[in-house]
Amino acid sequence: MIRVALDAMGGDHAPQAEVEGALAAIALLPNVLVQLVGKVDVIAAELARHPGADRSRVEIIPATEVIGMGERPLSAVRKKPNSSVVVGLGLQKAGASDAFVSAGNTGAVLAASTVLLGLHPGVERATVATPFPTADLPVLVLDGGANVDCSAKELVGFARLGSAYARDVMGRERPLVGLLNIGEEDEKGNAVSREAHELLKQTTSLNYIGNIEGRDILAGHSKLGHVDVVVTDGFVGNIVLKFYESVARLILRLVKRTAPDILQRADVQEVFRVLDYAEYGGAPLLGVRGVSIICHGSSGSAAIKNAIRVAAQMVETGLNQHIAAEFAAGSAPAA
Amino acid sequence: MIRVALDAMGGDHAPQAEVEGALAAIALLPNVLVQLVGKVDVIAAELARHPGADRSRVEIIPATEVIGMGERPLSAVRKKPNSSVVVGLGLQKAGASDAFVSAGNTGAVLAASTVLLGLHPGVERATVATPFPTADLPVLVLDGGANVDCSAKELVGFARLGSAYARDVMGRERPLVGLLNIGEEDEKGNAVSREAHELLKQTTSLNYIGNIEGRDILAGHSKLGHVDVVVTDGFVGNIVLKFYESVARLILRLVKRTAPDILQRADVQEVFRVLDYAEYGGAPLLGVRGVSIICHGSSGSAAIKNAIRVAAQMVETGLNQHIAAEFAAGSAPAA
Repeated sequence: MIRVALDAMGGDHAPQAEVEGALAAIALLPNVLVQLVGKVDVIAAELARHPGADRSRVEIIPATEVIGMGERPLSAVRKKPNSSVVVGLGLQKAGASDAFVSAGNTGAVLAASTVLLGLHPGVERATVATPFPTADLPVLVLDGGANVDCSAKELVGFARLGSAYARDVMGRERPLVGLLNIGEEDEKGNAVSREAHELLKQTTSLNYIGNIEGRDILAGHSKLGHVDVVVTDGFVGNIVLKFYESVARLILRLVKRTAPDILQRADVQEVFRVLDYAEYGGAPLLGVRGVSIICHGSSGSAAIKNAIRVAAQMVETGLNQHIAAEFAAGSAPAA
Repeated sequence: MIRVALDAMGGDHAPQAEVEGALAAIALLPNVLVQLVGKVDVIAAELARHPGADRSRVEIIPATEVIGMGERPLSAVRKKPNSSVVVGLGLQKAGASDAFVSAGNTGAVLAASTVLLGLHPGVERATVATPFPTADLPVLVLDGGANVDCSAKELVGFARLGSAYARDVMGRERPLVGLLNIGEEDEKGNAVSREAHELLKQTTSLNYIGNIEGRDILAGHSKLGHVDVVVTDGFVGNIVLKFYESVARLILRLVKRTAPDILQRADVQEVFRVLDYAEYGGAPLLGVRGVSIICHGSSGSAAIKNAIRVAAQMVETGLNQHIAAEFAAGSAPAA
């Protein structure tokens, strides 16, 4: 049985979206047990609204405090040891849980995951991996905002973590990696990207295709070929991710103004469903010794269910053992 | 009469798009004369395909060389003094032209503009300003890719140049400026953005609203209010711009797959027309002592016509005199 601890108090729609997502996940995944972490009375009341649901694989884990969305991450983690985030990750540290999912304060989940789970030896920084929906397969962009300033060597680390995830969880047998830049030529970009490009070329454990441009992410390929994993620092990654999140709203406004009738059509709604995923998908934190998935604050029950499914997949495929082995082997070039 | 020199040899669809765009522009703008710069026989042959068109305000300026899309900008400008880019900008330097428009090699146009026109005293770097279409008014993002690594002080310069353009050419009486960042709080971002945020707050000649996020560009506002001008370095600006350029193609692929019939509808095509503008609009180079507009390589005649119109507007409104006065006054804070 895979035990997934779910922060029942995080997110804009907690605990409703969390409880509904948990019940949907156990109905879908026979080998998953969800540990709802948070205020017992609040969770029990929400569960009581689903009297017919199978609760055999749902546990309630008490956590009396909640970290708010506006709180400063590190100090909140220190000051609130009984918060759902700290308790949920503490379970995993103690061996009583296999994974953690939260739609709460992103910075607090990041900080608590790094502090409580620790990093795999050889990993310099943990990274948030964000799947970007495209017309074909999703493209994994990392870092999504956890690491604002990055060295070239750290970017290589993100490429290795992203490749492991793309292989184990996204089913890409030979994940192709691109470095996000402003042109494909060797000399393009800022000092860090030029150095990272050279280091990535030398990293034989990666399938590095080269520099790619902003337009290649959604295309899923550059002139150099298909792309599965896009590496950039968290400053650029976060800006592009949030920009993408706003695209569905722009299209919706434009369509509402010019052709509002088509919004009723199921096939048109399917287009928005793809775009909406940019906003509502969960993002795994890679590099920590454990499983931690960060969901968008506005996640609904479908996003929570999906994040639980991904968390279980990360456990099942042995992603962490593979990352540990890859980084222990130290296949990065000397830098 | 406003004399606009047009690089007749630049762009993927030259000289056809250029000649058609020029003829459309003079039909629209009675006070504009277009100087078609390039190979005389090629331009004459293209003009001959429009026997009925008014040619009273079209001149042909000979330029025997062409700078290719793949050539290294600075060396191409040095090695090809008779290229359409160098000849066209040379006219302006000599006082024989008022503005230059090109869909050719962006780097070469940048380099030649900076070298031939020079910078206004007080301007540290010229910047490419790119209008992003939104559901309401376009938002001006700068830098669009000319300056990869920028100091905080240079970002303040971009904000001042962008504000002048937004006021004179985009009709924003009191242009509101945001700094592109990964959160609105003072402490968010990398070292340069934190410093730029502080400098921008101190620059009294600007209407600075604060840090904005990636999602606020297309929304046209942040939590802090409306945004007209978005400031960032050319690395981030170029990546976000090219990402945006790819959105229309993603939506097209999704719609083609799920609801292809709606693509025939004029109201739906109107939605794509807005998005396409991201790809086909011209971008003025601000900070140089003159007028230089860079068009996308794939520009068609409508984009060329539009760029000529904007070039004429930049001349007519006296944008350069206003920029010169603003920077001579030295209203930037000491840094």
